[in-house]
Amino acid sequence: MSSDPSSATLADLGESGLVAKILARISESQVQSSSVEIAAGDDAAVINTSGSSFVLSVDMYVEGKHFRTDWSTAIEIGRRCAAASIADVCAMGAIPVGVLLAIGLPSTTASPWVEDFMAGFMQETSDASSILLGGDVSGSESIVISVTALGTVVTGAAITRSGARAGDIVGICGRSGMAAGGLRVLQRGLRSPRALVDAFRVPEIDYSAGVRAAEGGATSMIDVSDGLVADLENIARESGVGIEIDTEKIVVPAELVSTAAAFGADPMAWILAGGDDHAFVATFPPTKPLPAGFAAIGTVVIDRVGEVHIDGVRYEDAYGATPGFQHFSS
Amino acid sequence: MSSDPSSATLADLGESGLVAKILARISESQVQSSSVEIAAGDDAAVINTSGSSFVLSVDMYVEGKHFRTDWSTAIEIGRRCAAASIADVCAMGAIPVGVLLAIGLPSTTASPWVEDFMAGFMQETSDASSILLGGDVSGSESIVISVTALGTVVTGAAITRSGARAGDIVGICGRSGMAAGGLRVLQRGLRSPRALVDAFRVPEIDYSAGVRAAEGGATSMIDVSDGLVADLENIARESGVGIEIDTEKIVVPAELVSTAAAFGADPMAWILAGGDDHAFVATFPPTKPLPAGFAAIGTVVIDRVGEVHIDGVRYEDAYGATPGFQHFSS
Repeated sequence: MSSDPSSATLADLGESGLVAKILARISESQVQSSSVEIAAGDDAAVINTSGSSFVLSVDMYVEGKHFRTDWSTAIEIGRRCAAASIADVCAMGAIPVGVLLAIGLPSTTASPWVEDFMAGFMQETSDASSILLGGDVSGSESIVISVTALGTVVTGAAITRSGARAGDIVGICGRSGMAAGGLRVLQRGLRSPRALVDAFRVPEIDYSAGVRAAEGGATSMIDVSDGLVADLENIARESGVGIEIDTEKIVVPAELVSTAAAFGADPMAWILAGGDDHAFVATFPPTKPLPAGFAAIGTVVIDRVGEVHIDGVRYEDAYGATPGFQHFSS
Repeated sequence: MSSDPSSATLADLGESGLVAKILARISESQVQSSSVEIAAGDDAAVINTSGSSFVLSVDMYVEGKHFRTDWSTAIEIGRRCAAASIADVCAMGAIPVGVLLAIGLPSTTASPWVEDFMAGFMQETSDASSILLGGDVSGSESIVISVTALGTVVTGAAITRSGARAGDIVGICGRSGMAAGGLRVLQRGLRSPRALVDAFRVPEIDYSAGVRAAEGGATSMIDVSDGLVADLENIARESGVGIEIDTEKIVVPAELVSTAAAFGADPMAWILAGGDDHAFVATFPPTKPLPAGFAAIGTVVIDRVGEVHIDGVRYEDAYGATPGFQHFSS
């Protein structure tokens, strides 16, 4: 490792260190624009246009880092790239509209792989009531996929990460820990339990959950891609609140219990730290019932700002590790 | 090469063959959406939202294919990626609004390279009166950059590739052949003439030219990324017309004349076939003067549909090669 910080590499800085550097650079140089309601930094940007607003988000998926062609079929990879990208738009309370796809492919890529990838990508896009709005194809050393997702929301009604208030209920819609369990299974060279492996390969996303949360008065929302605790920390920090999770309220699926036991792991650690399931977590005023599909798992508190506590203690203290989900390295 | 077409690779199919396969797959499965004015296939998609419309386009740039870090500085690469992407939105007659950036970086990438890239990207984005609306960072084997550009246009006023009519004047705003000349210079290990090398490194784009063309009654428009003739062929084919170019009307810059002479090449071949300069070419009704900055270089004709003729002959017959610009291979 270099001792001169100006010549640090990505490996030294880490992805979050790099993103912080980039965000610092951006905020210096942004021009003002009256049509931009929310710029970079949340799940997606929001653009206001006479009464309705557009929500936009981009994600990149790299072979060997986010997916492996020996672990997932081309159809599954296509579905997952569309699903994970569109989830960001839903997490703003928006209705998905369309996607743009840029794909880099090695010259050795077989044509049927690309056709299957597109079939899966279009199937999931269609399942989210969206269409393909544009694309680009290029050669590259390994498969690289970039998806921009677009949705619409009533102007002023987008749900950010910064609106949670002390006393709010934390609700989750969707699964957590299943994809992380599936990744552990695949990393050991196994292919079952199928429910976990399938969850890693293609997330099951309720594309109307974000709109239901918005209609149900959600004060903040995020989709869980980096891990339940890690993503709730984003809400806690940006809302200036603390969050308490009560693990007794979290239902642990039977497949997670048995697989974690076989691996000598704690299934609750997978649920709290695992990413890639793209559940929606949101905060709601305590005065109303939670929207359909959302289950209460905790509360927003006024103290311990920016922190998430699990049954009264920090994740690091309860589980001896940081809760960020590192996807995997090839 | 494989004899079974179902197992053809990208190297067999070529990029255009692959795009055709993908487009065929897409059109089968698109759902209808009342807010989508123009979907994938033109320079950019157009989304209608109560009176004003959004224009969206995505491009991918891969190290070793679209740029080389030993030929261009990080600042230049950042500027070029922003410029080339925003040009697509302008080529629809739209006003640029913002960009989304996804970037894949090898772990060995030096932090200052990334900071310089971002500085260049933000500078060019700002020059186009745009802001950064979102982003994603990932590890990857080589540097891969995906840029989604967004603009606005009055609903119904977007300029597509399909509206050219017989009798229209073909006008160009910006340079052509300069970047291709710069690429030839760099490929020979040279660094001058500087004007050509600089043109390859960062295109000079007039970001208001697209709006001026629209206000001037343009019937079709495209930005030149694959080559002047190749991109005019897109207009000819999609408009169902022929196009005649009169090379006597094209001004050849002195740097192109001298460099082409030194290389034993024809500078007009570089102008007609070279890409990456991102000039705007548009067709205009003959009844009005061309908008400021546009120069007449040809006319739209009723016959030889889908073809572009140079002083009465096809490019292939005049120059002995197809006019497509292949960027370069590392």
